[in-house]
Amino acid sequence: MTVLITGYEPFGEHEKNPTAMIAERLDGETIAGEQVVGRVLPVAFDVAGEQLRAYLSEYTPSVAIACGLAAGRSAVSVERIGVNVNDAVTTPDNAGNDPVNEQIAVGGPAAYLSTLPIETVVTELLDASIPAYVSNTAGTHLCNNALYTLGSAIEDGGYNTKFGFLHLPLTTKMAAENAHETAVRGASAEPSLPLELQQRAVESAIKTAVTSTV
Amino acid sequence: MTVLITGYEPFGEHEKNPTAMIAERLDGETIAGEQVVGRVLPVAFDVAGEQLRAYLSEYTPSVAIACGLAAGRSAVSVERIGVNVNDAVTTPDNAGNDPVNEQIAVGGPAAYLSTLPIETVVTELLDASIPAYVSNTAGTHLCNNALYTLGSAIEDGGYNTKFGFLHLPLTTKMAAENAHETAVRGASAEPSLPLELQQRAVESAIKTAVTSTV
Amino acid sequence: MTVLITGYEPFGEHEKNPTAMIAERLDGETIAGEQVVGRVLPVAFDVAGEQLRAYLSEYTPSVAIACGLAAGRSAVSVERIGVNVNDAVTTPDNAGNDPVNEQIAVGGPAAYLSTLPIETVVTELLDASIPAYVSNTAGTHLCNNALYTLGSAIEDGGYNTKFGFLHLPLTTKMAAENAHETAVRGASAEPSLPLELQQRAVESAIKTAVTSTV
Amino acid sequence: MTVLITGYEPFGEHEKNPTAMIAERLDGETIAGEQVVGRVLPVAFDVAGEQLRAYLSEYTPSVAIACGLAAGRSAVSVERIGVNVNDAVTTPDNAGNDPVNEQIAVGGPAAYLSTLPIETVVTELLDASIPAYVSNTAGTHLCNNALYTLGSAIEDGGYNTKFGFLHLPLTTKMAAENAHETAVRGASAEPSLPLELQQRAVESAIKTAVTSTV
Repeated sequence: MTVLITGYEPFGEHEKNPTAMIAERLDGETIAGEQVVGRVLPVAFDVAGEQLRAYLSEYTPSVAIACGLAAGRSAVSVERIGVNVNDAVTTPDNAGNDPVNEQIAVGGPAAYLSTLPIETVVTELLDASIPAYVSNTAGTHLCNNALYTLGSAIEDGGYNTKFGFLHLPLTTKMAAENAHETAVRGASAEPSLPLELQQRAVESAIKTAVTSTV
Repeated sequence: MTVLITGYEPFGEHEKNPTAMIAERLDGETIAGEQVVGRVLPVAFDVAGEQLRAYLSEYTPSVAIACGLAAGRSAVSVERIGVNVNDAVTTPDNAGNDPVNEQIAVGGPAAYLSTLPIETVVTELLDASIPAYVSNTAGTHLCNNALYTLGSAIEDGGYNTKFGFLHLPLTTKMAAENAHETAVRGASAEPSLPLELQQRAVESAIKTAVTSTV
Repeated sequence: MTVLITGYEPFGEHEKNPTAMIAERLDGETIAGEQVVGRVLPVAFDVAGEQLRAYLSEYTPSVAIACGLAAGRSAVSVERIGVNVNDAVTTPDNAGNDPVNEQIAVGGPAAYLSTLPIETVVTELLDASIPAYVSNTAGTHLCNNALYTLGSAIEDGGYNTKFGFLHLPLTTKMAAENAHETAVRGASAEPSLPLELQQRAVESAIKTAVTSTV
Repeated sequence: MTVLITGYEPFGEHEKNPTAMIAERLDGETIAGEQVVGRVLPVAFDVAGEQLRAYLSEYTPSVAIACGLAAGRSAVSVERIGVNVNDAVTTPDNAGNDPVNEQIAVGGPAAYLSTLPIETVVTELLDASIPAYVSNTAGTHLCNNALYTLGSAIEDGGYNTKFGFLHLPLTTKMAAENAHETAVRGASAEPSLPLELQQRAVESAIKTAVTSTV
């Protein structure tokens, strides 16, 4: 069986995206006996969902976890729910799309709940000394879009895939780079976690999802 | 020549204090050609300052950097200034002292500015991919007390010691432990940096201070 | 026709609840030609939803807006979605119930989207100089419970009722009272809006909902 | 005797400044038996301090309170200390000056402590249901500059003037206006207090300062 892990390409003001780096690093690895397929999605409302649906169809994974960057958050966020809304808020996507309060699936369900054992995922992360929590909102940008799309595509395809979404903070390296102009003048650097710890978080979430019987 | 590094013992709700661990680890090390003396101060308004003065008198270090824990902050804070105020705010010290808006030195100067090259310290930390910034307030608890006391004691003793203060965030391990009860229920874990990165931050600050000609 | 407005009784550390005061003040008033029924719900997971369902059945209102207190928020929050989760996080309800990640409706939909014109509600509030925004999470406590329950009950009853939820900040008076012990010692008072402005916000939301043709 | 109250002209992205409006409104009023002189300072590092010194010289007030806008803060901040630093951080002044970690007074004292009875000022504000607190940092922009300059000028002139600084939040109107583009898309409006309440805060601080015997 396979596990699908996706990250996103860089977007907005960020030159890198830890979720792309982690998806690439984990691609081809074996975790908890499952083959990991790691893929990087474009930051574009009109094609990211299609690619995600295509990967599900191609690999019919037992577990699918999409990952995205959440600058400003201080811990790994295990998202509870994806809602039927596309809104780019202050950051148009890389193709210039800037949806305002649109539906992802017109007439579709209001939301999909992650079918990962989100509490166990968080508890295992904390037990491994990785700061983490259950988050009640993935926002309305492409990250939420991915979580909703997973739920919708898995329902449509009748797949038996556990799915969820992890928001990852800035890496310590990115937080340091971003702070170069203002930190010497009194503005705090943003919260962060090291890339290695973030990668271990994704690996831990895969293990918990694969081995969970819930 | 020697460099004095101090940390604090655990206090309040915290079972550990990264600054004590780092002071103990660095004690006896040689950094930038200087011998490091690492000491752990008690969290007690009436004796911490006396001990700090005694260490300055005993070692007459070329550089003295006191360190303290700042739960909630997301980066290494290089403090600019210590003010002539003792106030325990919401956390009485370990001896039960709970001063309200008292002066540290009755009739003393309003404040002492750190004589570390604080901007260079921050720039070197950022260059080493460690999130850091110049902070304009060390609060009014024992951390501020240490910074003010360093300035006062160095002035009184006529020492030629560069001095400053670093606030360090929770370690990732502490942030994870603190989150165990509420993170599965939707509350974020607090910002953090790994202990190893924090130790490298203190070592970097020592190097910058020792080698700076400012 | 009637408009149903609900608030909650005080809970947790709060001695008052602005939403109860506003529900009581608006009870019997006429707004935009509709009769307002204002009711105060108990802060108890096992009975609040039942009472809300009973009020819907009794009054079959054209508009139903539940209101709750969100200490820490700085503006009127017009909630987008209620999710199928009961979790008291750090504050058990007034009856001592402390649910952990339970479903509100076992086997029910993941969520209900508010059917208020939430963007227009926010725009009208801003035009009236009242700070407001669309919120993507009502949390998992009784406030979210009320929003989900409205969606569920209206669907079950086949009512033609527009429904939504407003989170209101602390009043300026409450923020000042709460700050008495720590504000003189350096801790900021929490964000707030005056009760009169909060009441005008609820009145404005009623008007927008009643007159909207969406 | 007279009381000097200063505000600042608008700056940065703000089209208005509540402190200018309040200084203009209070100019010529009598509070606690004292004549209020209200003046608006330019947001320019090189002239604001000179004007402040000139006003002190011209009016030799018994009390001088400078006021400035602190967008993002949620309560009236009674500042404890002004430090000997000019740094514009991310917002150059209206004349384009962008100082980086410069001294206000070369070779001057590290800081001046406000001589207002800051704890009593805060307590009186809270008793009047106005959210307020003692702040330990006025930043390093013109607001801090004003507080330091007051201390320096009063010392230089040998005046018997009690002095201090109040940071005021955004008005509710400004917070609502600033939120127009992003609030409908999920971003919270900033914290605020109504202009009338801010004005009452300044009046209360004047009364406390004038009548205090400390």
